[in-house]
Amino acid sequence: MKKLLQACRTFNKERDWDQFHTAENLAKSISIEAGELLECFQWSSDYDREALLEELGDVTIYCVMLADLLSVDLEENGLAKLAKAAQKYPVEKARGKSTKYDKL
Amino acid sequence: MKKLLQACRTFNKERDWDQFHTAENLAKSISIEAGELLECFQWSSDYDREALLEELGDVTIYCVMLADLLSVDLEENGLAKLAKAAQKYPVEKARGKSTKYDKL
Amino acid sequence: MKKLLQACRTFNKERDWDQFHTAENLAKSISIEAGELLECFQWSSDYDREALLEELGDVTIYCVMLADLLSVDLEENGLAKLAKAAQKYPVEKARGKSTKYDKL
Amino acid sequence: MKKLLQACRTFNKERDWDQFHTAENLAKSISIEAGELLECFQWSSDYDREALLEELGDVTIYCVMLADLLSVDLEENGLAKLAKAAQKYPVEKARGKSTKYDKL
Repeated sequence: MKKLLQACRTFNKERDWDQFHTAENLAKSISIEAGELLECFQWSSDYDREALLEELGDVTIYCVMLADLLSVDLEENGLAKLAKAAQKYPVEKARGKSTKYDKL
Repeated sequence: MKKLLQACRTFNKERDWDQFHTAENLAKSISIEAGELLECFQWSSDYDREALLEELGDVTIYCVMLADLLSVDLEENGLAKLAKAAQKYPVEKARGKSTKYDKL
Repeated sequence: MKKLLQACRTFNKERDWDQFHTAENLAKSISIEAGELLECFQWSSDYDREALLEELGDVTIYCVMLADLLSVDLEENGLAKLAKAAQKYPVEKARGKSTKYDKL
Repeated sequence: MKKLLQACRTFNKERDWDQFHTAENLAKSISIEAGELLECFQWSSDYDREALLEELGDVTIYCVMLADLLSVDLEENGLAKLAKAAQKYPVEKARGKSTKYDKL
């Protein structure tokens, strides 16, 4: 995500917006954008692909900014969490079941 | 995000979990995990760094899975959205103001 | 909430909208509207009172509809949950502390 | 909601928790609990009724607290919003359609 990270930094620097990007405000922003992403499915499983991609883009952008603020690499942090999930849900127990998968 | 994408694919294939990962279920999952991320700030701006990184990891993982389902590159999709935001919020108008920044 | 419940029923009946109001769709709607409520605070603790009241109204309306679908009284259901919370957080232990209050 | 309002006030007074209940913290709490409500449907339209009622109770409780902080009656505020929605979605145009109903 080096290109997106760099693009976010430039975007915010040009607008002097880093002042608004506390960890808490970014966490709120991720939740707000996730709600807009969910809205694509409010009344149906069908969705408008363009709208969905835009909302996914917004969530991604705020995730990149939050990782940057926390000085972690977004991808490495995701890999670390996936490794924990792999331990929590061993293949032999989890295979084909969603029941214990409620809490990533 | 090639490494995380590949790791997610392997993780889900081993567990036979792709069957649960419709676009709608992933959108719900992103919202749910975003709520857990927000919970790190429920009563205060202070936060537990480890907990925050884990929740950010969960949001990231589901974003990667949704992008994969939609056959887009998560980073490229973020860059496309940031380009739209740059047009919507021209530097000269947006500089230092959060007022019109409510709707990424 | 008898008046609001009755008003919601009439509103939906007139529009033939009950067909869209599955428990899942209402749960998604509550999350979506909660995101819009949160948006009032995205970049600041200050808020637009009118906007906030409207979003609170939306969350309330969907809660009333979901309670109706589940055939429970919204107020009685809230009282039952508050009684559980009172047991979980005994006065002598919880007094003045937010630390263990993260999980209502 | 007089009984639940009174019960919430007593609950918080006994625990000295009103100090945590700013409008922003309550808005975050509504979003967090809405995420837990949504979690009942993460991988399926089926749900655990008891869990769902508990999460609905949590959302309701925080809505009651926010209305109290804003000095409005939760039911009256919901009725006012429903009246606006009725104007926005006239019966003759809205009947049987979810398409324009995305934005309550």
